[in-house]
Amino acid sequence: MSMIIERLAVIGVGLIGGSFARALREAGTVGAIVGIDTDRSNLEQALSLGIVDEIAPDAAQGVRDAQVVFVSVPVCAIPAVVREIAPFLPAGCIVSDGGSVKTAVVQECEALMPPGCAFVGGHPIAGTEHSGAGAAFASLFNGKRCILTPTRDTDAGACDTMARLWRSAGANVCSMEPGHHDRIFAEISHLPHVVAYALVHAVGTADVEGENVLSYTAGGFRDFTRIASSDPVMWRDIALMNRTALLASIDGFSASLAELRQRIDRSDPAGLAEFFTIAKQFRDGIL
Amino acid sequence: MSMIIERLAVIGVGLIGGSFARALREAGTVGAIVGIDTDRSNLEQALSLGIVDEIAPDAAQGVRDAQVVFVSVPVCAIPAVVREIAPFLPAGCIVSDGGSVKTAVVQECEALMPPGCAFVGGHPIAGTEHSGAGAAFASLFNGKRCILTPTRDTDAGACDTMARLWRSAGANVCSMEPGHHDRIFAEISHLPHVVAYALVHAVGTADVEGENVLSYTAGGFRDFTRIASSDPVMWRDIALMNRTALLASIDGFSASLAELRQRIDRSDPAGLAEFFTIAKQFRDGIL
Repeated sequence: MSMIIERLAVIGVGLIGGSFARALREAGTVGAIVGIDTDRSNLEQALSLGIVDEIAPDAAQGVRDAQVVFVSVPVCAIPAVVREIAPFLPAGCIVSDGGSVKTAVVQECEALMPPGCAFVGGHPIAGTEHSGAGAAFASLFNGKRCILTPTRDTDAGACDTMARLWRSAGANVCSMEPGHHDRIFAEISHLPHVVAYALVHAVGTADVEGENVLSYTAGGFRDFTRIASSDPVMWRDIALMNRTALLASIDGFSASLAELRQRIDRSDPAGLAEFFTIAKQFRDGIL
Repeated sequence: MSMIIERLAVIGVGLIGGSFARALREAGTVGAIVGIDTDRSNLEQALSLGIVDEIAPDAAQGVRDAQVVFVSVPVCAIPAVVREIAPFLPAGCIVSDGGSVKTAVVQECEALMPPGCAFVGGHPIAGTEHSGAGAAFASLFNGKRCILTPTRDTDAGACDTMARLWRSAGANVCSMEPGHHDRIFAEISHLPHVVAYALVHAVGTADVEGENVLSYTAGGFRDFTRIASSDPVMWRDIALMNRTALLASIDGFSASLAELRQRIDRSDPAGLAEFFTIAKQFRDGIL
């Protein structure tokens, strides 16, 4: 592929940021890549692995001359990073991110952009259980979805550049409003995590004649509750940043559970079979 | 091992019943095995695979001369099967089962036993996603738990015989009251299924600007909701048969979820981190 931008700055050269850099380099759509990271040893590893061509002593110097700055740090830290770099952005620079919550991030970051610079919210739907520059690989986004969340104020050319970069990284790009993104991910990602945490919390604290019921769990319970082993700090931040949409999703789920509970309570065999069958059809439909 | 019983009748020669037969035969703790099954072709397969030595034209004839009758049919069908065979049980016969709900089954079946015969409730914690005689194998119960649920009225010798049989099949045997069993499994098995069904139901019917949000799900959602693809009829029956304990478990879960919802609603970072951390510790503890 031909070059799309000459200089990319990646802030946070971990699994996502590092894989984005590797993918663009492999595609030949970027010239030089500069890495910025508060974790100095991770940054040096990124340099020695050839993920980045150079490393910057601080974000302000790193973003100088960059056409695109990709911010790939924990979602709650994105606005602060963008606030820090904003005064140093060159004219025409595009800032984008990979955070899993969009409304709060886009709102804050868009407002921080100096004239002539554009913020484009993004969320690549990809990952592994590993982290850090050492875990990054070029094909991470191959065939995966990347959602861009432009607003009415987002520069169309900037959005197009980010779409072309993500496509060159192998991703299927689509666009939607930040709020729409957040309502979808509240349902399919944030709600399941909250439910899994609540389930393990409930079962772990259940008092069945004083016995630790968790000692009786088998593979099914372990698989079902795997996501409750996720990083509590990351999920604290996501829950807070997508609070409104997540509360609505929890309420929708609670209504479904209440409906199911009622059918059990009134011993309604037809109603139960119907409920379980509808759910099974939804589940089988996503296979 | 030396023989424990001379003649075993297995009613329902599927994954569990067939594997129990195979395991006892391999251990050498049973003489002849007779198979009984309403599915004629499954029964003939069991015979041709050598799982059973003979097949009976009906349950009444099949249990004649058996020292142990193992009833391995869907849990809601167990009492009806025991009612059917009760008049034909030989003196001293032990009837046992493998159902995943115990209070209702044990209560009904114990009352059906003719004088001199004993019912011993049982629940081997093992399985695969396959079913039928063709899926049965001798090592299914190796190192797995088998819970026996004798009551105050259960004959101690009968319970001991079942414990020896299960141990010879490779299982770790423990005993508890039927109600205690049902409260434990309401928490660790029945509740997670109900929650998974309710979650998929809620997400599948969620209206996010008219879009099908399930199309955005990835591997994490699929793994988390796998158990919502279970057999709706089986889970209808389990929900109805363990109704009281399950309702209590649902209420405990709802209280945990409400607590978590409140911490999100009031934007309580410390409270959220604490809740998620406690849940993660419970989850990591069962690895």
